[in-house]
Amino acid sequence: MLQYRQQANRGDWVLRDVETVLASGRTAFQSYLFFRSPSQGVCVVLDGDIQSCAADEALYHEALVHPAMLLHPAPRRVLIMGGGEGATAREVLRHPAVEQVVMVDLDGEFVDLCREHLADWNAGVFEDPRLELRHEDINDYLAGAPAGFDVAIGDLVDVADWDSPAAALYGEALYRRLRERLNDGAVVATQAGALATGNVAGHARVRETLAGQFREARSYGHIVPSFFHLWGYLIAGDVDMPWSAGDWLALFEARCAERGIELPGTGAAALGSAFALPARIQRALAEAG
Amino acid sequence: MLQYRQQANRGDWVLRDVETVLASGRTAFQSYLFFRSPSQGVCVVLDGDIQSCAADEALYHEALVHPAMLLHPAPRRVLIMGGGEGATAREVLRHPAVEQVVMVDLDGEFVDLCREHLADWNAGVFEDPRLELRHEDINDYLAGAPAGFDVAIGDLVDVADWDSPAAALYGEALYRRLRERLNDGAVVATQAGALATGNVAGHARVRETLAGQFREARSYGHIVPSFFHLWGYLIAGDVDMPWSAGDWLALFEARCAERGIELPGTGAAALGSAFALPARIQRALAEAG
Amino acid sequence: MLQYRQQANRGDWVLRDVETVLASGRTAFQSYLFFRSPSQGVCVVLDGDIQSCAADEALYHEALVHPAMLLHPAPRRVLIMGGGEGATAREVLRHPAVEQVVMVDLDGEFVDLCREHLADWNAGVFEDPRLELRHEDINDYLAGAPAGFDVAIGDLVDVADWDSPAAALYGEALYRRLRERLNDGAVVATQAGALATGNVAGHARVRETLAGQFREARSYGHIVPSFFHLWGYLIAGDVDMPWSAGDWLALFEARCAERGIELPGTGAAALGSAFALPARIQRALAEAG
Amino acid sequence: MLQYRQQANRGDWVLRDVETVLASGRTAFQSYLFFRSPSQGVCVVLDGDIQSCAADEALYHEALVHPAMLLHPAPRRVLIMGGGEGATAREVLRHPAVEQVVMVDLDGEFVDLCREHLADWNAGVFEDPRLELRHEDINDYLAGAPAGFDVAIGDLVDVADWDSPAAALYGEALYRRLRERLNDGAVVATQAGALATGNVAGHARVRETLAGQFREARSYGHIVPSFFHLWGYLIAGDVDMPWSAGDWLALFEARCAERGIELPGTGAAALGSAFALPARIQRALAEAG
Repeated sequence: MLQYRQQANRGDWVLRDVETVLASGRTAFQSYLFFRSPSQGVCVVLDGDIQSCAADEALYHEALVHPAMLLHPAPRRVLIMGGGEGATAREVLRHPAVEQVVMVDLDGEFVDLCREHLADWNAGVFEDPRLELRHEDINDYLAGAPAGFDVAIGDLVDVADWDSPAAALYGEALYRRLRERLNDGAVVATQAGALATGNVAGHARVRETLAGQFREARSYGHIVPSFFHLWGYLIAGDVDMPWSAGDWLALFEARCAERGIELPGTGAAALGSAFALPARIQRALAEAG
Repeated sequence: MLQYRQQANRGDWVLRDVETVLASGRTAFQSYLFFRSPSQGVCVVLDGDIQSCAADEALYHEALVHPAMLLHPAPRRVLIMGGGEGATAREVLRHPAVEQVVMVDLDGEFVDLCREHLADWNAGVFEDPRLELRHEDINDYLAGAPAGFDVAIGDLVDVADWDSPAAALYGEALYRRLRERLNDGAVVATQAGALATGNVAGHARVRETLAGQFREARSYGHIVPSFFHLWGYLIAGDVDMPWSAGDWLALFEARCAERGIELPGTGAAALGSAFALPARIQRALAEAG
Repeated sequence: MLQYRQQANRGDWVLRDVETVLASGRTAFQSYLFFRSPSQGVCVVLDGDIQSCAADEALYHEALVHPAMLLHPAPRRVLIMGGGEGATAREVLRHPAVEQVVMVDLDGEFVDLCREHLADWNAGVFEDPRLELRHEDINDYLAGAPAGFDVAIGDLVDVADWDSPAAALYGEALYRRLRERLNDGAVVATQAGALATGNVAGHARVRETLAGQFREARSYGHIVPSFFHLWGYLIAGDVDMPWSAGDWLALFEARCAERGIELPGTGAAALGSAFALPARIQRALAEAG
Repeated sequence: MLQYRQQANRGDWVLRDVETVLASGRTAFQSYLFFRSPSQGVCVVLDGDIQSCAADEALYHEALVHPAMLLHPAPRRVLIMGGGEGATAREVLRHPAVEQVVMVDLDGEFVDLCREHLADWNAGVFEDPRLELRHEDINDYLAGAPAGFDVAIGDLVDVADWDSPAAALYGEALYRRLRERLNDGAVVATQAGALATGNVAGHARVRETLAGQFREARSYGHIVPSFFHLWGYLIAGDVDMPWSAGDWLALFEARCAERGIELPGTGAAALGSAFALPARIQRALAEAG
C-alpha cells in the first residue's frame, strides 16, 4: 500500500498509511499532494513537506491566528501572507471587527485545489465578501500594497534551506515593507518552524529578523501532533504585550468573551500556556540568538 | 542498518536509525533493548515500548515527579512504584526534605542494566543512602508495606491491553492499598499514557480509578517529543489543589525558590502550563469519562 | 514523500519511493494504483498487490507466454484469461501462426487505464485485428465459449486467501471447462505464484488442480526481481513435454529460429533453465504435493 | 521493534523484522551485526551489508564453491580468500580429494563470532585438521604464499565504492599474485556482486580483471532471495570450460555422482542453469564490458 514518509528528525522517519490519494501533481510553483490518512484525515503536502492535516489543523491555525487577533483591540483590516488552505482566513473571519481580509497566496492553482479538496476546512471563506484573494509574490505585493493593516499573519511554507530563494519569505526586506503597510498598534504573527531542542536555528533566525523591525517579538509554541514537535510561532509589534503565560491567558479569556469567540481546538488556557516554553527550549533559543 | 520501529498512531509508524545496540535480551519478566539513536541518544525499550530517551527523559521525569513533590509542603518519605531507570528517584532526591525513598521495581535485572547503561541518568542515586531499592511486585509490596508515605509516584509501564495482568498496575486494588499507606495530606502522581484526540481511553480509565479513591484527581500533560504526543499524567490526593494553570505556576515558582530547585528541562512556567490541556483533549476526556 | 510498501515475506517489507502517482482509485471490481518508481519505472497495483513493473515486466510476460506458445507446433487460436495490461497479448501476437486471440478480462475500466498509462507495454495490441477483447468473468465465458483453442494463458491475479472467491480463478471447475474448449494437442500455461522455500503451498495447489485435468503439468520458475522471489509458472497439456532443462532449451532455440522470434528479456537459454528449479524448491514442492 | 533496513535498489528499501540481536559491535576492522529474522533466520551483517542469511546461505555458498570444485578434476589444495562464516570451507571440504584448505580471513575476531553464532553453518569445519586458518590481509598473504593451489575461492566483501581501499580485494594485483600461486589447470571462482539490469558495472569490472589474467572467465548467476537479485559469480582459469548450460549440467552431474556429493540447496540442474543468464543481463554485461 502507499505510505507517506516524512523526516521527523535527523535519523527519524515517520511512515503514514495512505488510504487515498486525492490529488498529486505540480502547479507552476510547487509539487502538491493531497491524501487521506487513517489517523490524520486529509493531509496537504507541498514540495515534500506536510502543511496541515485535518486531525489537528485546528490546533495549528488557532495558535497561528488568535494570539495576534486577540492582542489587537479591534482588528479591522487583516493581511494573510500565504494561507492557501483557507483555514487561516476562516479563523481570522471569526473576529467580528474584521471588515477586510487580503489573502496573498502566489499559487492560484493550489488555492483552487484546496477549495476542492479541503472544503471542510475553508467552507465558505472564499465566498465571504470580506475576503480579497490575490495571487502574487508576497514581496511584490508588499512593494505596492496600500497601507492600513491592523494585523498581518504569515502562513508561508517552512524554509528548509536558508540559502534558497524561499528565505525571502521570512527576510528583513519583507518585514520592512510590511511594517510600512501597518497601522499604529498593529500586530504581526507568523508560523516559525519547529521548536525542537536540537533544531531551533530557523526559529531563532526569524525572531531576530522580527526583533530588528518591531519593539516586541515573542516566541510561543503549541503542540501539533502531526508535526511531531512543539510548533513555533512568533508574535511581534510596536505594542505592549502581556508578560507571563497567565497574563496572556487573562487577555485571551477576556477578549474571547467580549467577541463571542470559542477556540474549540486549543482553548484560551492552552493558548495562554503556549507562551510558557519549556526551559530547555528557552535555553536553546537564547544560545541560538 | 538497524532501525527501531514504533507505532505512533493507527496507521502511523516511526522508524528511528539505531547507531548502536547497547543491550538486548530478556529478564525473568520482560524483554529489554537499550539502543543509541542519532536524534534521541540512548533509548530504553521494554516489551516493545519505548520507556525513555536521553534527549527528553528530563521532560518526562520532571513532569512526572515535581508537581506532586512541589504540591506537598514537606515530602519526607516517598514511594516510587517502578522507575527502574533511576531518573524518577533522581528527581525525587532533589527535594531537600526527603529522608527516605522506597523504590519498588519488580525487575532487579532490568535495574542493574539501567545502572550499567544509563549511568548518566541515574548517576549516584542507587548509592544514595536515602534510597531503599526493593524488587517485588508492587501490589505484593503494598499489601505488607509500612505506612507513612508523603508522596507516591507511579512510573510503571503503560498498559496496552486492559484485559491483561498489566492492568493491575493501575487498578483499584492497588490504589486502595496505597491509600492506606499514605500520611494525611499525601500526594500521588502517576504517568497515565498518551493524551491524543483519538486515544484518551486509557488515561480516562486511570483518572476514574484515582477519582474513586481520592478527593481530587487532575489530569495534566507535557510534550515529550520522543513519545510523539502530549503525554498524560495524573495527580491526586485528599488535598486542596490550585485551580488554574496560573495558580499551579505560582505554587511551583514559590516552592522551587524555597527549596533551591531548578527544573532544567521544563521550568516552573511550562510545568504550570501542563495543567491547561488543549480544549479538544479536555472535551475528549469528558466524553470518555 | 510517497512510498509503496509491499510485503515480501513474513516480517519483510519493501518500501519503494514513488516519484509520481499516475492514477489511483477503484473500478467496479478492484482498487488500482499506477505509479512510477525510480528503480522499476511504472508499476501497476491491484487490490494492494504489485502486478507488473516496467523494469522487468518483459521477464514476467515472456516466461508466462513463450514456453506454451513454443511448445505448441502451430498455435492459431489463443485464449488469454485476464492479462489486462496487454503485455501478455503482445507476446502472444509475436508468434506468426496466431490468427485469433481472445482476451477475457473482467474489468474493462482497468483495461482502459492500462491503455492510457501503459501504452509502452501494449502499444498497438488493442488495435490488432486479431485480438478480440471481452469483459466478463472467465468462468462465465468458459461456460459458453466456442471450442478450438490451441493455447490458453492464465494471467490472473494471485490468490492470497484460498477460501475467498478469487480461488475460483484457479479452481478445478475452471480448468475442466477450459479443457473442453481446447483442440487436441493444446497447451495451457498460467502464472502460479511465488516459489519461495517457506511459501510454495499456493503453487502446489494449482499444480495439483492442473495435474488432475491434464496428462502433464510441470512447474517452472524465472526470477522477476520486482517480485523479490523466483516466480512460479505451470505448463500443462495432454502432450509430450521435454524432460530436462537442456531439452526445453533445444526446443525453444529451434522454434524461435523457425518463427523468427527473439526473447529480449529472457532468451531461449534462460527460459530453458527455468525448468531446472533449485533442489530445495523441488523438495518443498514434493513435500507440499 | 527492531528492523534491519537494507537498500535493494535506488529508491528501494527492505525492512526486515529483527527478532533477536545476537551480537553487534566493531572488531578492529569492521562493524558487525548478527540478528535473527522471522523469514531469513540468522543473518550476518558487516559494515552495513548483509553477508548471508540462514534461509538461503546454502544457495549462495553452493553456487560460489561447487562450479569451480567440480570443474577441477581432483582439487587437493584449496585457497579460500575471506569466507569468515565458515560455510565456504564447509562446502569445499565435502570434496573427497581435498587435502588442505588455507582460509585467509583478515578478521580473527569476526571469525570467532561466526564460530559462536553460526555453529549450524560451520559446525566442525574449524576443527577439521585439513583447514589452516590465517588472519592476515589477502594481498599480503599472496605476496609470500607458497604455490600449489588447485582451486581458489573468493568470498570477500562486496565493493560499494571502487575508489576505496576495498577495491584491492578484486584488483589486478591480487589476481596476478594469485595466478603465480596456482597449479596448472587451477580454477578460480569469486562472488561478484548483483546482476541487476541497471547495476552490472561492478560485476563487469571484476570480469575484466579476471579476463586479463586467465584464458577463460565466465559469469554465472544464481537467485539468492535475501539479496533481492540474481547474484553474480565468476569462474576463471587457464582451462577448457563447458560452453552451454547443458554442458555444465552434464559435468556437474557426472562429478557429483563420482564424488558422492549432493547439492541440497541448488542441485546440479539449477547450478548448470546458472550459466544461462537472462538475455537482458547478458546484454547489459556486454554493454558494460
